[in-house]
Amino acid sequence: MRSPKSVVVTGSNRGLGFGLIQQFLKDPNVEIVIATSRDIEKATALKSISDPRLHILQLSLGCDESINSFAQKVSEIVGDTGLTLLINNAAVMLPYVTKQEPDRKIVNDLFESNTIGPMILTQKLIPLIIKSSKSEEGSTLSVSRGAIINIASEFLGSISENTSGSGEYKAMAYRMTKCAVNQFTKTLSIDLREDYVLSAGICPGKVQTDMSKGKGEFTIEEASAQLIETFKKLDERHNGGYFRKDLSVIPY
Amino acid sequence: MRSPKSVVVTGSNRGLGFGLIQQFLKDPNVEIVIATSRDIEKATALKSISDPRLHILQLSLGCDESINSFAQKVSEIVGDTGLTLLINNAAVMLPYVTKQEPDRKIVNDLFESNTIGPMILTQKLIPLIIKSSKSEEGSTLSVSRGAIINIASEFLGSISENTSGSGEYKAMAYRMTKCAVNQFTKTLSIDLREDYVLSAGICPGKVQTDMSKGKGEFTIEEASAQLIETFKKLDERHNGGYFRKDLSVIPY
Repeated sequence: MRSPKSVVVTGSNRGLGFGLIQQFLKDPNVEIVIATSRDIEKATALKSISDPRLHILQLSLGCDESINSFAQKVSEIVGDTGLTLLINNAAVMLPYVTKQEPDRKIVNDLFESNTIGPMILTQKLIPLIIKSSKSEEGSTLSVSRGAIINIASEFLGSISENTSGSGEYKAMAYRMTKCAVNQFTKTLSIDLREDYVLSAGICPGKVQTDMSKGKGEFTIEEASAQLIETFKKLDERHNGGYFRKDLSVIPY
Repeated sequence: MRSPKSVVVTGSNRGLGFGLIQQFLKDPNVEIVIATSRDIEKATALKSISDPRLHILQLSLGCDESINSFAQKVSEIVGDTGLTLLINNAAVMLPYVTKQEPDRKIVNDLFESNTIGPMILTQKLIPLIIKSSKSEEGSTLSVSRGAIINIASEFLGSISENTSGSGEYKAMAYRMTKCAVNQFTKTLSIDLREDYVLSAGICPGKVQTDMSKGKGEFTIEEASAQLIETFKKLDERHNGGYFRKDLSVIPY
């Protein structure tokens, strides 16, 4: 149950991402915490934190130049020990329903932010994560060795548990983007197993964020604290899986 | 076990789509068969068929103007009785693996052709399919009333059955596009249930097509003939599901 030495959390200027940054900074064993925001100007909460371990970097998942520049900066910050943990948390929710006039731009934006951008970012950071994982001996997997965690959505990502369709959140396209990420997680877990990198999708539950319009069961602080305890429990058994934060399995 | 009165099959200038067109035309109860191709010039096999029930229309799933124009022509062809059955068959396979330099264009192209384009086309045709389904009484679902069938991939769409990662077909991104379609199918099945429109994802098995590099277990003719028999068996129990062609359930 060791802590990651370094961590990147995307979309961390507010909501759950910001909560995760706060929690990681409470852990003295975490040496480097990298927060990202599309617009650093607006990341006032992050900028009010005074901790030399915190690095705030601009990142737009829709832009290759931004991703490349970000990956370069992360490489410089983490140095020879590599990056221990990437948390793909950034996502957007835009309403889109079956029975509407199609709008390709909305759908493209959702896939870009929630699926394609995180995939490209992950690919760019994989060499740094492998560098961290390869610095340990043995074949164990853990978030303190080298890991990719995709923040998932049980309620909107699971196909089996989809009983409301477009539903209250008008989440037709959003559901598709999050389900594709589950397939991404599974693929990563197989392709990176030889490098001792762990991949998992973890659902935070219903959190009181802007995205859920405040209708959550947990505060951001509660959810982030619980999530970090969950991350530390991840091992071989969880590689490639889709879990609630109590590590019970969510059906795809 | 009645036949659809009218059917659209996308991507039908070759492969499984072409096989389905041939099979539908063997059924005298099918009155209208609409085949699509991105490039009509090259659709030589389709154009060699002499049957007044066959309509060959240009369709580019990446282009809204093309989709809108196609939907307008389908509306004119099917008339007041609407469209009975839409088969989203068109898909492209482009190699893409976890450990490669990211290429956003390839990933965008895959999502556009396999996920977003079919979704937008379906949305444009839904009013015509509802027109067909509403012309019948009762609450039964069938491909002879009003239905959307998404040609699925067991081997590359299922997350649970993903044991090879990027694998032999270098299908990292392709897997994600097909998995997102399963979530689309499920969402459609819920949102269109009140309109008596059936939605299902059906996997043809390993067919000897260009996409599978000829490595299939079935010829295109065998697979298409079997698929059409399967379509006719679909009812309420299959709405929203993901099936092999023997109608056994594929785990998501």
